[in-house]
Amino acid sequence: AESQWGEYDRAYFQSYSHVAIHEEMIKDHVRTDTYRAAIMRHQNFIAGKVVMDVGCGTGILSIFCAQAGARRVYAIEASEIAVQANEVVKENGLSDRVIVLHGRVEDVEIEEKVDVIISEWMGYMLLYESMLGSVIFARDKWLKPGGLILPSHATLYMAPITNTERYQDSIDFWRDVYGINMSALLPLAKQCSFEEPMIETVSGENVLTWPFVIKYVDCYTVTARELESVTARYRFASMMRAPLHGFGFWFDVEFNGPVLYPSNHHSSSLSGTSSSDLYSHGASTQRKRQSRSSDTIVLSTAPEDPPTHWQQTILYFYDPIEVKQDQIIEGSITLSQSKENPRFLNIHLEYSSGGRSFVKESVMR
Amino acid sequence: AESQWGEYDRAYFQSYSHVAIHEEMIKDHVRTDTYRAAIMRHQNFIAGKVVMDVGCGTGILSIFCAQAGARRVYAIEASEIAVQANEVVKENGLSDRVIVLHGRVEDVEIEEKVDVIISEWMGYMLLYESMLGSVIFARDKWLKPGGLILPSHATLYMAPITNTERYQDSIDFWRDVYGINMSALLPLAKQCSFEEPMIETVSGENVLTWPFVIKYVDCYTVTARELESVTARYRFASMMRAPLHGFGFWFDVEFNGPVLYPSNHHSSSLSGTSSSDLYSHGASTQRKRQSRSSDTIVLSTAPEDPPTHWQQTILYFYDPIEVKQDQIIEGSITLSQSKENPRFLNIHLEYSSGGRSFVKESVMR
Repeated sequence: AESQWGEYDRAYFQSYSHVAIHEEMIKDHVRTDTYRAAIMRHQNFIAGKVVMDVGCGTGILSIFCAQAGARRVYAIEASEIAVQANEVVKENGLSDRVIVLHGRVEDVEIEEKVDVIISEWMGYMLLYESMLGSVIFARDKWLKPGGLILPSHATLYMAPITNTERYQDSIDFWRDVYGINMSALLPLAKQCSFEEPMIETVSGENVLTWPFVIKYVDCYTVTARELESVTARYRFASMMRAPLHGFGFWFDVEFNGPVLYPSNHHSSSLSGTSSSDLYSHGASTQRKRQSRSSDTIVLSTAPEDPPTHWQQTILYFYDPIEVKQDQIIEGSITLSQSKENPRFLNIHLEYSSGGRSFVKESVMR
Repeated sequence: AESQWGEYDRAYFQSYSHVAIHEEMIKDHVRTDTYRAAIMRHQNFIAGKVVMDVGCGTGILSIFCAQAGARRVYAIEASEIAVQANEVVKENGLSDRVIVLHGRVEDVEIEEKVDVIISEWMGYMLLYESMLGSVIFARDKWLKPGGLILPSHATLYMAPITNTERYQDSIDFWRDVYGINMSALLPLAKQCSFEEPMIETVSGENVLTWPFVIKYVDCYTVTARELESVTARYRFASMMRAPLHGFGFWFDVEFNGPVLYPSNHHSSSLSGTSSSDLYSHGASTQRKRQSRSSDTIVLSTAPEDPPTHWQQTILYFYDPIEVKQDQIIEGSITLSQSKENPRFLNIHLEYSSGGRSFVKESVMR
């Protein structure tokens, strides 16, 4: 299995050796500004301390940490961009404090434990790329007790989506093409457009209900085992009459210290998959969200917030479902690491409404 | 070699079985409207005649021809989209006149010669995809003497390009990232951004001189041999002082009948590659362009014309060259089918200006 991971990882890390992906991430100012603000907010904790940056890319977060006064930053990067990260560090006169290590965090050896782990590990639908596993590995092996993890908490949401414009544009389009009835293309259009999860931007107006929390991750306590497969049962009541086109998924992450959120606060109740557990989880997380302190730093990729390069992930149905106000939409969702490639995400979605039930299987590659 | 082509073709035709590529082409209204206008313009020639549509895709051009009164249309398509094309034809009650043949034009057998060949074969930089070869094959095997080919003529242009905004956005960007000097990424950024031809939209303001004609193709007479490798020597005098960032490439196609342009009008002088031949060719084509009748139907992908899905193709230099007004930029360009995969295009560019010379090799995959 290790050697197979190695093979997938070559392709995965290869994709991060191209400069465009780093340009896109850095230019996502919601992302970069929020990370910088979070580092500066925790400056008292970081100053004079040892930091590990898991997957440092071009090294920008490591340098922010150095600017915040870190005594030493281990900037770990498995892709070839580590070469450039090292040069950036040198050119900025930080070689004595920022140590770029070219390798997987699972393989590197350093001579001390760290006070802080920082990482920008979030993929589409939060879990795509499975990079959180490397952060967990780093935490268990290298983080001192009471150390800080940034971000500290992550929440994956889902909500029913209506998007008539999108549907008309790519599906109904074929009903009349220059006056020609091309409806024969409808099945193929639905298959091609909606087989895989779509990464696209929707707005708050496309969302039919309050979102449901699929998974709340406490980075201080989450285990790799817990992430192999995540199942949640959901139940929505549509807030309006509308065609239901699919489900939208997005996440946010919070940057809290270890003191504010004791490490066993949110951990154990989430691994169960019985419906009662998960409903109560949904409710308790709702309370948690409300109790989020107004000065908690949050990086949000929600439709109602400024867009990011993550956009939202949409699972479209082949055919929309007309729902009335208060109509119940319920079912379950399972996200699991693909056995084909652990970086891929298998999505098993069951949904029913108005007496009809459906199952949709998809893979995010 | 045949079997190797077969292998590449599977991947090539596979790419046309996805519906999105057809949606994009049809929604390129410059493209679709111009083809429809050209068909209607030649309605007198098409009505009651036999048409062959080489690479019919969803069948839209074949149906336009049926609407123009074609007695029979052979709609030939090697990709799986042929299945849908056939259904579209049926649903529109045209099965007696439009015959969809699922296969490569090189392989299909029909029982009669055709009066008209129509095809939308143009790739990026005109020649990418090498689909014109299939049109030539169809012409030589199936077109009656005096038959009509739409489009009838194609011209590939190049011109020096200035694009400071683009350069600043992806290259100079790294000089100051959130106050950090990330110039260490400049070489990689140049390599990643500019190694391969870029498909992007530039405007007339980005073009430093009148364009040069690399290749003028008369579809009535062009040979496959002639397209294996196209070389031209160019010489520009910059019309302004500006940083020269690279060369832009675009094309247009004309829809002329075989009578207006006798089949040997533009054929022989283009296959030579000596510089005198090509300079005179450039000049004669300039005259030809000026003499284009105002009612010639032209599908243009030039920067000064409305954008199409082909956009323009830009070959950027790693470093811009500061040119003065009237400064000479000269060199040669060779476009050749890749030996790796005949659908790919090898681009060999030599350029010199202000006493410095450069060579740039790239591949359009």
